[in-house]
Amino acid sequence: MAGFSFQVEARDGRARAGRLTTPHGEVETPVFMPVGTAGAVKAVLHRDLREIGARILLANTYHMMLRPGDALVAGLGGLHGFTGWDGPFLTDSGGYQVFSLAALRKLDEEGVRFRSHLDGSAHLLSPERSMEIQQNLGADIAMAFDECPPGDAPREAVAEATLRTTRWARRSKDAHRRADQWLFGIVQGGVHLDLRETSARELVAIGFPGYAVGGLSVGEPKPGRDRVLEHLDPLLPADRPRYLMGVGTPEDLVDSVARGIDMFDCVLPTRNARNGQLFTRSGRLSIRNAKYRDDPRPPDPDCPCPTCRTASRAYLRHLHQAGEMTAATLMTVHNLFYYVDMMRAMRQSIRLCRFEEWRGATLRRLAAAEE
Amino acid sequence: MAGFSFQVEARDGRARAGRLTTPHGEVETPVFMPVGTAGAVKAVLHRDLREIGARILLANTYHMMLRPGDALVAGLGGLHGFTGWDGPFLTDSGGYQVFSLAALRKLDEEGVRFRSHLDGSAHLLSPERSMEIQQNLGADIAMAFDECPPGDAPREAVAEATLRTTRWARRSKDAHRRADQWLFGIVQGGVHLDLRETSARELVAIGFPGYAVGGLSVGEPKPGRDRVLEHLDPLLPADRPRYLMGVGTPEDLVDSVARGIDMFDCVLPTRNARNGQLFTRSGRLSIRNAKYRDDPRPPDPDCPCPTCRTASRAYLRHLHQAGEMTAATLMTVHNLFYYVDMMRAMRQSIRLCRFEEWRGATLRRLAAAEE
Repeated sequence: MAGFSFQVEARDGRARAGRLTTPHGEVETPVFMPVGTAGAVKAVLHRDLREIGARILLANTYHMMLRPGDALVAGLGGLHGFTGWDGPFLTDSGGYQVFSLAALRKLDEEGVRFRSHLDGSAHLLSPERSMEIQQNLGADIAMAFDECPPGDAPREAVAEATLRTTRWARRSKDAHRRADQWLFGIVQGGVHLDLRETSARELVAIGFPGYAVGGLSVGEPKPGRDRVLEHLDPLLPADRPRYLMGVGTPEDLVDSVARGIDMFDCVLPTRNARNGQLFTRSGRLSIRNAKYRDDPRPPDPDCPCPTCRTASRAYLRHLHQAGEMTAATLMTVHNLFYYVDMMRAMRQSIRLCRFEEWRGATLRRLAAAEE
Repeated sequence: MAGFSFQVEARDGRARAGRLTTPHGEVETPVFMPVGTAGAVKAVLHRDLREIGARILLANTYHMMLRPGDALVAGLGGLHGFTGWDGPFLTDSGGYQVFSLAALRKLDEEGVRFRSHLDGSAHLLSPERSMEIQQNLGADIAMAFDECPPGDAPREAVAEATLRTTRWARRSKDAHRRADQWLFGIVQGGVHLDLRETSARELVAIGFPGYAVGGLSVGEPKPGRDRVLEHLDPLLPADRPRYLMGVGTPEDLVDSVARGIDMFDCVLPTRNARNGQLFTRSGRLSIRNAKYRDDPRPPDPDCPCPTCRTASRAYLRHLHQAGEMTAATLMTVHNLFYYVDMMRAMRQSIRLCRFEEWRGATLRRLAAAEE
């Protein structure tokens, strides 16, 4: 498709360093995509996102369809025109949020009827409606509409959701028209390797330019997730981008890149920042802790981010305790820089064929700090 | 005093264009000082303040003494070291806030005993304590401790407060030791010209490097304020900076520069931004208004600020309605730019001896828009 490409430029074990080209620019992978739920990453201006090296943002179909509405966004030039972010966007399918946020859900083969968590208004999300919304939003990458069962769902329910996700993926592809937008399929199947395998094979048979792995940020145990990724690695086309949805901690990202994942999104760095938790090279730091009240050091003395260059722990703690919005801004900038910078480091180590060495050292340092 | 100076560089009528030099840099006047209550301008990073041309910030003695505490700030290098703002700071005396925010106030000649609005703890603010706090905070400019009666106080109460403010000004000067900090006196007297005259004469006799006019942002009618400023103009030393505390609207600033004021602070541009009200060259704009929901224009099409260069009314309205913090950031940046830029325009027109022409055109445009 014009304007799009993906190349794997280097491999080290299962880990891959690649380059994703979109109509709104190139993205080096592995990549972390900050979550811009309502068309804006919470507490951080676009300019600061660019400065710290964020290259592609995620926006939520569910939130945007309800407010301000996808037709309105389309009339203002789509997400790019509306928000002013001129780099690539990815929109999710709406499936995950409709199952976690919406009230009075009613699911059938057509789709999901639900009431808005904002004003109770009635809506339908279906493969066709999700494609309509995502084409209105005009992100560079759209996602097939999927059913995402909870992590503790019984196998029967997961199996049914997985088969439905495949049928919905076919309908999504049929309903998708925009030539300037890539549509990715989503593999479901919980922690059941046979269901995952069926899902992957059927989606690959339908054919998508990229594949996401859904349903692995819903409370399942980490060994189960790792096994799923290892099982999927040979099943997914080696030359297509792979996106692990909604995951996760720094350790999760490292361990998933080790299993061949190229793209990630997660609210953890942004949400935790607003709650006063900072990710640092030597573990997590809760700025509320009284011991930081007169600590003149930056959050992470080894970090070159704009926050660590200018703000002390004492100042950040004060701003957080005083309820100042700039506390959220400064700490979100740091956490996103940490995530983006970690992806850069992984990419570099893969290109140098030293990923396992980097991974071991990084995980050891994080584990030591957690003690 | 070393590192400090003030020169009036141009006059046009009573209006003055000057240059204030402090140990942390020069400030061209007339100047608007954004309010950084807790050592941070709400919702805006220091870098953005610098970019839009803000040169000197105000911090509130009352807030900083209670949280994080002035001794802690002193230990971290004063306001400059603590906050990382490397330009000039001014601290108020604490008087205004203790009369408007604190609980269980008890006023006598020594000072004001009160309970913190945060945790109920008992405190004393007196001239000596205010000087101790302000010297701990280490702003470039400190203010004498004053009593600020409400705008509807009877003449007797205003007279008493004015005389006490003079006595407290003398004690403030006696208690002030820092050679790298200027201490300004505060003229009180409400809208009573004779009380204002007495206050000004006595403060000038004590002798300060600069003079503030207090008690004119407390609900008094505007003609009363204008008369006070006109009356004070010949009474205050022509070569000293004059600071009108807590005022005000764009029209207020224009009309007060016309009466010889050099320095201003006010929460209006920052507070209104957080409530969705934008100041524009053609009047005020409430971003909540439904007519802006699909308006692709920037808030002020004639404005070169970072917000107007990148964000539409529709996007700002969406962010505001969705409760996104970046709505406050983007709109505060615009409103502060508007204020700072208006001061630049006034300065320029004074230097060109075209202030009255500029003032008339500006006020006419604002008045037309309010209709």
